[in-house]
Amino acid sequence: MDLSPAKPEGALPPSVEEAIRRDTVPRSIAEVQTPALLLDRDKLKANLDRMANRLRRFGVRLRPHMKTAKSAEVMRLALKGQFGGIVVQTVAEAEYFARHGCRDILYALSIVPNKLARLAALQAQGARVSLICDSLDAARAIQRTSASFGTSFPVLIEIDGDGLRSGIRADDPELGALAAALSSGPGTTFAGILCHYGSAYNAESRAELAKAAEAERAAAVSAAETIRQHGIDCPVVSVGSTPSALCGQRFDGVSEVRAGVYMFQDLSLVELGICDRSSIAMTVLATVVGHNRSASTLITDAGAIALSKDLGFTDRDTPHYGEIVDASSEEQLGLLVNNVSQEHGIVEAGAADFERLPIGSLIRILPNHACLTAAAHRGYHIIERGEIVDFWPTADGW
Amino acid sequence: MDLSPAKPEGALPPSVEEAIRRDTVPRSIAEVQTPALLLDRDKLKANLDRMANRLRRFGVRLRPHMKTAKSAEVMRLALKGQFGGIVVQTVAEAEYFARHGCRDILYALSIVPNKLARLAALQAQGARVSLICDSLDAARAIQRTSASFGTSFPVLIEIDGDGLRSGIRADDPELGALAAALSSGPGTTFAGILCHYGSAYNAESRAELAKAAEAERAAAVSAAETIRQHGIDCPVVSVGSTPSALCGQRFDGVSEVRAGVYMFQDLSLVELGICDRSSIAMTVLATVVGHNRSASTLITDAGAIALSKDLGFTDRDTPHYGEIVDASSEEQLGLLVNNVSQEHGIVEAGAADFERLPIGSLIRILPNHACLTAAAHRGYHIIERGEIVDFWPTADGW
Repeated sequence: MDLSPAKPEGALPPSVEEAIRRDTVPRSIAEVQTPALLLDRDKLKANLDRMANRLRRFGVRLRPHMKTAKSAEVMRLALKGQFGGIVVQTVAEAEYFARHGCRDILYALSIVPNKLARLAALQAQGARVSLICDSLDAARAIQRTSASFGTSFPVLIEIDGDGLRSGIRADDPELGALAAALSSGPGTTFAGILCHYGSAYNAESRAELAKAAEAERAAAVSAAETIRQHGIDCPVVSVGSTPSALCGQRFDGVSEVRAGVYMFQDLSLVELGICDRSSIAMTVLATVVGHNRSASTLITDAGAIALSKDLGFTDRDTPHYGEIVDASSEEQLGLLVNNVSQEHGIVEAGAADFERLPIGSLIRILPNHACLTAAAHRGYHIIERGEIVDFWPTADGW
Repeated sequence: MDLSPAKPEGALPPSVEEAIRRDTVPRSIAEVQTPALLLDRDKLKANLDRMANRLRRFGVRLRPHMKTAKSAEVMRLALKGQFGGIVVQTVAEAEYFARHGCRDILYALSIVPNKLARLAALQAQGARVSLICDSLDAARAIQRTSASFGTSFPVLIEIDGDGLRSGIRADDPELGALAAALSSGPGTTFAGILCHYGSAYNAESRAELAKAAEAERAAAVSAAETIRQHGIDCPVVSVGSTPSALCGQRFDGVSEVRAGVYMFQDLSLVELGICDRSSIAMTVLATVVGHNRSASTLITDAGAIALSKDLGFTDRDTPHYGEIVDASSEEQLGLLVNNVSQEHGIVEAGAADFERLPIGSLIRILPNHACLTAAAHRGYHIIERGEIVDFWPTADGW
């Protein structure tokens, strides 16, 4: 077995070199190496405006969740007219956005001591990094470690309203003691309350969505009241998810709303009745690489990695991995990605589809769950009126 | 909104700098920033040996599929004692492994013209890149483009045996004409036949697995015979998947077997009865970041991205995203990752679990589908007898 280095680079035929240069900085969608993400800047801006305008009407601040986009350029657009704080879900995201100038970062996953050094470094470099916590044990562990680093973190108490994830119940008798422990430091200050209702994503009607948003708000506000009754200031009352931000009818007592997937939208939000397909800003560009006429399927190069295996809530009767639209007109083609293997997308198709989508055709796929689809790629080809105008890289890893 | 650069780096307190240095090059599992992949080198080698020894007994060559591991170091181990060819599923993988010295690369996804330049560049630099093709239209497109680059690709005809993916049926009347077109160039030479039975993964017994392997072999060999009856040489007859490589009882007429996930193994292979849990070489290291006592769940930091949302075939009655073992002893803890959100893993647990897994505990998660789990990470912490000895980065993207 010979694994020694092959010929040095730079000895390519000119036609190959030229083609590769075109691949590297594509000027049109046809030149993009697929699978790849397209992000429509006008749709993105419209989605950002819609959220910003709605929350402004309610007089509540917006803290964009950057776990969906993981992009500094998207952050800059999402923070226009906002107070400047963001929320992230990984330490790597916190580092990336701090490096791109953000000074108010909420890390919204329960922290453990061996991740605190990297966040302490961000604070030493001028960012304010807030943490969340839901138990006295965790609070004491944060305090010990952050005090040893000579820093102090603002900490919010996470409230669990629906039992789906983490948090302490709003009526837990330990709540006041936890706030008192956090506020007495050293190593922490008590910053407020955070609540997230994942159950909003299980709602089956607009009325249920509004109800989930109200339950989230009520749990957060009641927890804040309990803490204030202990004589402790509770400046931040943070709620949110895209469904509750877009469907909540009241935000009384709430200081800020967190949301992320509203920036891109996806088929899960369509299914929830929150947006139209036409407002989905991020799509997966793919190529039809084969026709399997005997199996009546088209094969594309966007498979389980490029799309993720998230079935979304798109249609429980016909599980699928995305809906196919025309790459230029974005017209719906009535085709689904019915199955995936690692790098293959399998599309049930008829004779007319083989005619209109010859091998080599580009298609675009509306994602079931934009957050997971975005995370599988290293950036977005930015399009404006169908033309590629930029490439925005993304943060990656943990 | 101020997004100007914060304080320059390098001004960190010494305690923070030291902790970060430890995070970057962890010497023990306890120092790893989670979620992260651990790869047990002894288990990897045992899995590689098992496959190599089995196929050697049958006198058939092994072409390791590097889409699972995406690692040059794993390739070097997998090619020990083999003929040196590999198979990949993306152009980025082909480029990565060529850069690491591989000279015989099979790109096993139907190719489209605008991806050929990058593969032509690899050929210009000394690698042999084989393609697959399943129609006359696709063959002509490859020929036109590769001739324009002044190169010629060896092309295998992909045979579709089970209708699950791409390929032409072994009994398709076009088969001989397709082989003739590929062998008459310019831009292509005809290299042989490739067949993959994805349906092997649907088998419910060892007997069904052996039957699927035999159907795959028979389809490939019969296609090769048809082509030879047209007076065309058919040197390569390539079959495979890990199930068929490990369960096939005959490889007569087969020249090489492709397999990838055998290197790592996973719960899908356990469910198929092909391996034991103890032979799974790659696990996800995660931290218990929370206890939700009122919901009876543990929260970990390995969620939908770190594990993938692949439910595998692990247990259709209790869908889950992985099984939890002790981080040191690898003893089964009787816990599953029952649900995931982007960065949260939700584990149904009882009072005893809160005691034995306090917040901050490390756990390891056996993956449902090693290929997709590996693809979400940028490399492996290599462990030997529980100690970290190296970090092997991976290829990424397309």
